Amino acid sequence: MLLPSLREQVYRANMLLFEHKLITFTWGNVSGIDREQGIVLIKPSGVPYEDLSPENMVALDLDGNVLEGDLKPSSDTPTHLVLYRAFEGIGGVTHTHSRAATAWAQAGQGIPAIGTTHADTFAGDIPCTREMTRSEIEGEYEKETGNVIVERFQELDPLNIPAVLVHSHGPFTWGKDATASAENAVVLEEVANMAYMSTVINGSIPPQMSLPLLNKHFFRKHGSNAYYGQ
Amino acid sequence: MLLPSLREQVYRANMLLFEHKLITFTWGNVSGIDREQGIVLIKPSGVPYEDLSPENMVALDLDGNVLEGDLKPSSDTPTHLVLYRAFEGIGGVTHTHSRAATAWAQAGQGIPAIGTTHADTFAGDIPCTREMTRSEIEGEYEKETGNVIVERFQELDPLNIPAVLVHSHGPFTWGKDATASAENAVVLEEVANMAYMSTVINGSIPPQMSLPLLNKHFFRKHGSNAYYGQ
Amino acid sequence: MLLPSLREQVYRANMLLFEHKLITFTWGNVSGIDREQGIVLIKPSGVPYEDLSPENMVALDLDGNVLEGDLKPSSDTPTHLVLYRAFEGIGGVTHTHSRAATAWAQAGQGIPAIGTTHADTFAGDIPCTREMTRSEIEGEYEKETGNVIVERFQELDPLNIPAVLVHSHGPFTWGKDATASAENAVVLEEVANMAYMSTVINGSIPPQMSLPLLNKHFFRKHGSNAYYGQ
Amino acid sequence: MLLPSLREQVYRANMLLFEHKLITFTWGNVSGIDREQGIVLIKPSGVPYEDLSPENMVALDLDGNVLEGDLKPSSDTPTHLVLYRAFEGIGGVTHTHSRAATAWAQAGQGIPAIGTTHADTFAGDIPCTREMTRSEIEGEYEKETGNVIVERFQELDPLNIPAVLVHSHGPFTWGKDATASAENAVVLEEVANMAYMSTVINGSIPPQMSLPLLNKHFFRKHGSNAYYGQ
Repeated sequence: MLLPSLREQVYRANMLLFEHKLITFTWGNVSGIDREQGIVLIKPSGVPYEDLSPENMVALDLDGNVLEGDLKPSSDTPTHLVLYRAFEGIGGVTHTHSRAATAWAQAGQGIPAIGTTHADTFAGDIPCTREMTRSEIEGEYEKETGNVIVERFQELDPLNIPAVLVHSHGPFTWGKDATASAENAVVLEEVANMAYMSTVINGSIPPQMSLPLLNKHFFRKHGSNAYYGQ
Repeated sequence: MLLPSLREQVYRANMLLFEHKLITFTWGNVSGIDREQGIVLIKPSGVPYEDLSPENMVALDLDGNVLEGDLKPSSDTPTHLVLYRAFEGIGGVTHTHSRAATAWAQAGQGIPAIGTTHADTFAGDIPCTREMTRSEIEGEYEKETGNVIVERFQELDPLNIPAVLVHSHGPFTWGKDATASAENAVVLEEVANMAYMSTVINGSIPPQMSLPLLNKHFFRKHGSNAYYGQ
Repeated sequence: MLLPSLREQVYRANMLLFEHKLITFTWGNVSGIDREQGIVLIKPSGVPYEDLSPENMVALDLDGNVLEGDLKPSSDTPTHLVLYRAFEGIGGVTHTHSRAATAWAQAGQGIPAIGTTHADTFAGDIPCTREMTRSEIEGEYEKETGNVIVERFQELDPLNIPAVLVHSHGPFTWGKDATASAENAVVLEEVANMAYMSTVINGSIPPQMSLPLLNKHFFRKHGSNAYYGQ
Repeated sequence: MLLPSLREQVYRANMLLFEHKLITFTWGNVSGIDREQGIVLIKPSGVPYEDLSPENMVALDLDGNVLEGDLKPSSDTPTHLVLYRAFEGIGGVTHTHSRAATAWAQAGQGIPAIGTTHADTFAGDIPCTREMTRSEIEGEYEKETGNVIVERFQELDPLNIPAVLVHSHGPFTWGKDATASAENAVVLEEVANMAYMSTVINGSIPPQMSLPLLNKHFFRKHGSNAYYGQ
């Protein structure tokens, strides 16, 4: 049950956010799951990035019971667990307050798919959730945050659009493993910045790019017909 | 009366601003107070950050008399002293000209609470003071700067909103100690940037976020019911 | 056929993009050509910049046949080859997804020549291509990307305007060799940022600068009457 | 005639621009003057910043004759010389293409004095020159660039406003010596960024700040009644 390679991967994925300057203080967290054993590893709460190590990642089961670790898991853990339960094909989840993606979330606007940088990773607009209700906020807030994300994806494929903006909050991304989820957070921040600048140049949020171009870029890198990369 | 641990803390809090790139040249200053002894330590005026040390922080009493130190205290010292006298619960004060927060101050606009990044630290909008009058400016200017801040907080709790924008000038932040005041300056600059971008995406300054969400985020980290962090 | 100096130059030109922070992950690619031998060297696909070396640049002929190298050439190789065949005077090609230049491409807007920073390198507006058709996208997409660039330059001199924005995609630049093409990508990103900010200050995309000033700056650095630099 | 301390100062002032990230490639140049000897030292043209040294600064007289040095002086030298001849109180001149200041110049807009960061260094708006005429551009262009600056200051005091934007080009700054001129270029870029953001927040270029506040900040740091700094 020690999962050394998953510990190492989840640790490195957390540090990837830090190295790409998506992080202020201790903000942000990445988790990864071992689906066979039903074990999630996640960043501890409130620990400076400089002090993180593979060993202090916290191990939990899918109900949130701590299996290993002396530190408290990230306060956003219940959101991660809802996503693992709802999105069966994912192996990692990342949450950040990266500046540009958060700015879109604060405006209550999804990020439009308007260029191939976006389409290389996301097969459509990045959706923004509805605002949460007072009872959701005052109840099991972090779990309900997960539920409002899942609700937003009722008619979307989370494997094709591995990111969401939580209204008035910020982004969550996911992927086949912890590394992919963190890389998607980096790409999301870049496309959030680009779409921001394009909106200014255009005078308003630009319309979605051509669908053939969107599909071409996504599916040359993802799925059974991919031909991009080594 | 040597206060070695306070000297170290005030020094480190000043350097925190520098490390987070909030500083150009010698701009900015942090102070901390020992309430029992009535002693304030503050950054000296005009000294490069590379030359700061715990030893060259200047010690003053609450009337501004220098108790220890060969260097002149920061020119903004009278503003800090007004805040310590008016806001009894605070132990540290920070002043910067950080870019985004200053831009809001120059526009004479407070920073709206529109996301959880803001709400995690500030329980409402960051207020902007009124413009100072000619007689305030030409009189004891730095002290009057403090007075106009205190006036702005007549109906606000400075412990719940530990930041202000001085009109046409820039931000002051405070906290339970020097470190907290400097950390609040870093968060303020981040939320100033985010709110700026959200304003552009939205087409105008967005309305305040939902009050239950604002309160949830602030009070899960502050006060007697806090459960966030280690 | 080992081309050691061209290998070194193409490697260094790729790294120039990385050092100037135009690159996220493995995005971007530079190639250089030996016109006498008809050999193109290009960055391999999907290899981290930290792992690039002169030795792993891939050698191809102008039809895209790999002559040397175990790695796949950049997926954008067919676009580079179209440009080498169409623009006889060029010796290097660079493609990036640099943020500001891509933002203009996503808005479907060329970058107006509105200052001498622009005019020092580009003798006119940076054009944006038309959108590609569905059949171009679903056919030989990367080659058609080159064709739509060449079409855009039917009445422009690629040696005087060594850059283009591909609609909904991003910039390609070129130059007398690989180094010049990469340097032009750096300048393009800078002028894209400046023109973005000027557009905001001006309230709309500013009109082109005075033609005498544009010509003065371009031709004091390029062509037979140049007098700028050592 | 070797001027070792001036050589060192002009070299360091050039490097200051580089360290504050105002420079792309070899752009930008700083000069300093020894008024008694009538000797100007300036950065050589086209030399990478990494290769600059006190020794390769070029020495000229006020007519532009090279007195010492094997390298060509900066192409902008004639502009510097016009400023030294017209503005008797200055001892250093700096030219950059720093991003935000250049963006204002490209929009043909001066930078409004709207905050104390601005007023600490500049006692009023930073003016923008008129556009240059065709005959000025096609004649002695770099010298005429100086003349159009001098014309713009006919009713302004260059010691109180040590900066200008040349229309469609970029900023020149000056000061009592080379160091001060380069520091003013750093401050100018910062206030150009702040005024840019304030313009966006405000919805249009904000009106000038209160004159008493402008004067208070400028004259507490400059002139015979200064009391700021060590």
